[in-house]
Amino acid sequence: MTTDLVSKEISVEIKLGKNIVKIGAMAKGSGMIHPNMATMISTITTDLKISKELLHYALKQAVDKSFNRVSIDGDTSVCDMVVIMANGMANNKELMNKNNDFSTFQNALDFICKYLARLIAKDGEGATKLVEINVKGAETKEDAYNIVSSIAKSPLVKTAIYGEDANWGRIITAAGYSGAFFDPEKLTIYIGNLKVFENGCAIKFDENQAKEILSNDEIIITLDLSLGNYVDRIWTCDFSHKYIDINADYRS
Amino acid sequence: MTTDLVSKEISVEIKLGKNIVKIGAMAKGSGMIHPNMATMISTITTDLKISKELLHYALKQAVDKSFNRVSIDGDTSVCDMVVIMANGMANNKELMNKNNDFSTFQNALDFICKYLARLIAKDGEGATKLVEINVKGAETKEDAYNIVSSIAKSPLVKTAIYGEDANWGRIITAAGYSGAFFDPEKLTIYIGNLKVFENGCAIKFDENQAKEILSNDEIIITLDLSLGNYVDRIWTCDFSHKYIDINADYRS
Repeated sequence: MTTDLVSKEISVEIKLGKNIVKIGAMAKGSGMIHPNMATMISTITTDLKISKELLHYALKQAVDKSFNRVSIDGDTSVCDMVVIMANGMANNKELMNKNNDFSTFQNALDFICKYLARLIAKDGEGATKLVEINVKGAETKEDAYNIVSSIAKSPLVKTAIYGEDANWGRIITAAGYSGAFFDPEKLTIYIGNLKVFENGCAIKFDENQAKEILSNDEIIITLDLSLGNYVDRIWTCDFSHKYIDINADYRS
Repeated sequence: MTTDLVSKEISVEIKLGKNIVKIGAMAKGSGMIHPNMATMISTITTDLKISKELLHYALKQAVDKSFNRVSIDGDTSVCDMVVIMANGMANNKELMNKNNDFSTFQNALDFICKYLARLIAKDGEGATKLVEINVKGAETKEDAYNIVSSIAKSPLVKTAIYGEDANWGRIITAAGYSGAFFDPEKLTIYIGNLKVFENGCAIKFDENQAKEILSNDEIIITLDLSLGNYVDRIWTCDFSHKYIDINADYRS
């Protein structure tokens, strides 16, 4: 049984010198999803000529910023896989080191994996909205990740977004219990481009404007910690009645 | 605003020699709940005569096995508190050390705190069932706690219970991603008194019997890891449409 509602596919062409290189990819997955990857499958094919080691490196780089940054419900499983296959038919000079051609390929692969990861979150079980959570200005890499992961998992944040309420209290609370270090006095929170919290205080924002932003089917939440240079991002979705239907009544 | 639907109160009398000692307690809380304690309040009063240090010790002991073992949705807040006040009016010989009288008091306090903690889980936002999750035979204390906590937080386990399905796959998966050590080949899982998984294999159990157990309003899930002597227990509830209603539409 699959609960995917849309097919998730993309193909891209890049030019390496005179050679056209093609990359095609598809993914499946819509529930029981949280880093690392589970429960999802993605297959990527390309006619690029590239060394095995470099291909593996490129995939790992791409996956860490994409399939390892999707959360639907915080649950995971052992059934996850991303494979990439390169048959070398493009006849480019084989990529053996991190030169400009490799960067071009890496950029394309990053783009493809992010595109599919976003689609997985958007097609999350019961999802009515895609939610992107950004952290900027963290003191460490771990702090940035722990905050985005904690907010993405919070049932209270996800139900508030389903209800289209700009509940920054639930956002800051999930950041707080993540265990990451931040100073509320230096924190700024944005919902879309609307500032809702700054320097330890709620901002008197226009509720109608917030409602309008939250009525969209893609919502971006940003926390600027103003402490350091680390950033992170995760894609998730809201938490709706439909999620309960899918996961409670799946046998009837 | 409160989402508590029932009042949570209890009073107990214990006999210390010739003296009757009374203990009364109440608690409030039904959402945004996960160890440690948040979001809940409990107040306990007694006429016991006891040293401040010993009273503090007794409360901590009791809370660790009760209010710190309740999870509604995995969310927490900074608004949590349990206070105990003892006015000494019972005229017992002041408790200064861990003698038999102290044990009698500790047992009563444990009973009271567990009673209230269970009520909080049972009255969890949207809950239709109280779910008790037990781990036995863990190699370490941390492993036992991490498994009960992970299962109690899993939206997939909680929606399966709402749907009254004996989905041991979701239970073992949540145990797996908890990071705790266990050997599936040695694991036994019970739903109520029905064995559903043993020695790495699903057991062909009677689906009607499982359905009957899961149709009750109190469900006990037990995992026996058969590795060591550590046990743990947490009280939680199922995850229903009503939870989404309460936490998405709270402003309308």
